Amino acid sequence: MEKKGLLTVVSGFSGAGKGTLMKGLLSKYDNYALSVSMTTRAPRPGEVDGREYFFITREQFEKNIEDGKLIEHAQYVGNYYGTPKDYVFEQLDAGKDVLLEIEIQGALQIKKRFPEALLLFVTTKDAQTLIERLKGRGTETEEVIFKRLKRAAEESEGIEEYEYLIVNDDLETCIEDMHDIIQKAKLKASRNSEFIKKIREDLKNI
Amino acid sequence: MEKKGLLTVVSGFSGAGKGTLMKGLLSKYDNYALSVSMTTRAPRPGEVDGREYFFITREQFEKNIEDGKLIEHAQYVGNYYGTPKDYVFEQLDAGKDVLLEIEIQGALQIKKRFPEALLLFVTTKDAQTLIERLKGRGTETEEVIFKRLKRAAEESEGIEEYEYLIVNDDLETCIEDMHDIIQKAKLKASRNSEFIKKIREDLKNI
Repeated sequence: MEKKGLLTVVSGFSGAGKGTLMKGLLSKYDNYALSVSMTTRAPRPGEVDGREYFFITREQFEKNIEDGKLIEHAQYVGNYYGTPKDYVFEQLDAGKDVLLEIEIQGALQIKKRFPEALLLFVTTKDAQTLIERLKGRGTETEEVIFKRLKRAAEESEGIEEYEYLIVNDDLETCIEDMHDIIQKAKLKASRNSEFIKKIREDLKNI
Repeated sequence: MEKKGLLTVVSGFSGAGKGTLMKGLLSKYDNYALSVSMTTRAPRPGEVDGREYFFITREQFEKNIEDGKLIEHAQYVGNYYGTPKDYVFEQLDAGKDVLLEIEIQGALQIKKRFPEALLLFVTTKDAQTLIERLKGRGTETEEVIFKRLKRAAEESEGIEEYEYLIVNDDLETCIEDMHDIIQKAKLKASRNSEFIKKIREDLKNI
């Protein structure tokens, strides 16, 4: 079977727990690699260059686009966000399953360029739970919470573009679901055309 | 999430161990139901009506086709084979995951009529292993083995129509793979349009 790693796109509602899920996967299994995006937005307090994002200038970003150094990129609230190609390809070649946490614009680019990529959408079990989680942080104003919920309503428009829903109710179950879905995706026929071609030819040459 | 059972089609090379796999799944988990096909071929020694097949006449079979009582049917070596609709629908409604062990002709009909059905193809890890397994039974003439291998070569033409390959190398691993793939298929976005519709509407109505 195919030895290369699998490219997995993880999108989902803000507040649904994408970050915690990814951390869970990375700490529990050693076959995953997390892609770090590039952005032109300014670092927030506590963010470290190369950890949350690679923080670069608009000129550098546009040069990267021109040079074909990004496998996807999108603009959001006036800033660029994109995924560096080299890191992703190196990790996939080394057999690592690469996780990309990106928005729908980028997810759709990945789906088009890499049809074998797996697209997962992380959600709470219902809207009420999402509202409670966003409020529960207790750190945001009503206005910010309202904006986030409006954003979630927009994000929900694209769910059908994703292959699987990851319903983050119980965290441990959810990490296991995600791991199983990614690992079993390697058994897809569409991903194993070399294997199929070989067994077909061998059977014909008997 | 969707409470109905999942319809799973299992095809694969003769000799790859489909029967053993299905038995393993059925004995290990109680969420599966095996659909028994109808056929016009004569029972072989040891076959029991309603266990291996429902053995019926050609007239009865054609009446079933006319009455829309079959969800798929095909002819093979002059005999009809088909899947009774009522049993499958009853079991799915009761939340059982229904396994259909059928050939590619029938599998393609199921795929067309029930796009949410899961299509699995069982294979050995390579052609050589298949040859050894077919010979290893020790009960067949060279001619019969040769015919089976020719048949396998034909069957291999359709593998791309299936979603997942089930590589039967270690039986226990294989049963687990199959179980995981079927259970996780329930998390597909395409299967949960009601869930998506609801969360979308709830988020919009805040």
